Amino acid sequence: MAARAGRGPRGERGAQADRILTAARKSFAERGYDRTSLRSVAQAADVDPTLVNYYFSNKMGLLKAALEPPDAFGEGIAEAAEVPLEERGRAFVEAALRMWDDQATSEILRSIILAASHEPFAMERLRSVFSALVLQVVSASLPDDEAQLRADLVATQIVGLAMTRYVWAIDRIAHMPSEQVIRLIAPTVQYYLTGPLGDDISENA
Amino acid sequence: MAARAGRGPRGERGAQADRILTAARKSFAERGYDRTSLRSVAQAADVDPTLVNYYFSNKMGLLKAALEPPDAFGEGIAEAAEVPLEERGRAFVEAALRMWDDQATSEILRSIILAASHEPFAMERLRSVFSALVLQVVSASLPDDEAQLRADLVATQIVGLAMTRYVWAIDRIAHMPSEQVIRLIAPTVQYYLTGPLGDDISENA
Repeated sequence: MAARAGRGPRGERGAQADRILTAARKSFAERGYDRTSLRSVAQAADVDPTLVNYYFSNKMGLLKAALEPPDAFGEGIAEAAEVPLEERGRAFVEAALRMWDDQATSEILRSIILAASHEPFAMERLRSVFSALVLQVVSASLPDDEAQLRADLVATQIVGLAMTRYVWAIDRIAHMPSEQVIRLIAPTVQYYLTGPLGDDISENA
Repeated sequence: MAARAGRGPRGERGAQADRILTAARKSFAERGYDRTSLRSVAQAADVDPTLVNYYFSNKMGLLKAALEPPDAFGEGIAEAAEVPLEERGRAFVEAALRMWDDQATSEILRSIILAASHEPFAMERLRSVFSALVLQVVSASLPDDEAQLRADLVATQIVGLAMTRYVWAIDRIAHMPSEQVIRLIAPTVQYYLTGPLGDDISENA
């Protein structure tokens, strides 16, 4: 499948497809779909323009491949979803920080978010990937009737952490040590996973 | 002050400046700074191009004015910050939902976020506005030593709620009734304002 070319074994072909994808992500994120040309992507990737067509068929194929989240993303969430329920809140926060602290992964996540902000198709992909790789995995890992609702709530907290700490890089949040972030945010995620929803946490605490 | 022209009394001049700002926000958000021209903004706003210079001096002046958050934004947060501490968590969530459910305000907030995603200057403005209007106001309303940290934590939750519900419009989160969102998220915000930070909420609950 052409769209997965960049994720296969790392031969010369895989390396070329990866260079094309990296250049494409940058262009889609910075200039949007309309202003991205296969020719300029090929030039930035230092490959012959015919190779872009060969690997990705056309511009839409290239966009779809560029919007594939890194394997580490789905894997990290799936792994965290297998941690015993009472420690899973911390596991999800740790997985999120690990992905965003990894430069290769965070560049891809960032470019997907940027592309989504000015490309309706990219936004649609972000929504469906997020539902499939995040909400479904998190909710499937939960035992109770409110599993879907709990997954949504976890998402609100972790997305907000990623946006303020990594995408917007709001001062203190961006510079806090990971261990402090985990200590502060994990209880909330754990509460969304297993707490009595909608109760007044402070009174109970 | 030219940059505030659109926010003064609503005479013919205020209305023209507002139309220019609306067109400029749309253009900066969709096309970015480089591809926005004063001429195309004037055309979209149906005003003479000289008026854009008259009100906003130049393209950077126009961008700065376009990135001013609506008055309702700062006011809403300041009002919520005056609610008695034990109910302030709910007040902040209500204020956030009110802003985002108001079409005029949410369009401006959305365009600021989009412009920030491909304009370093806009991102810098988003950061400083966020620090001044959100983090400082929230932390100033808190009595204890950890006021700044608590404001940061509140921000991670409310930004994540706004992104998933309004900007990305992730399925269930986007369609939940406001009252349910408030019931589910307010306890977390209240916990960040007044709870014992970093404790295991679930065990305490």
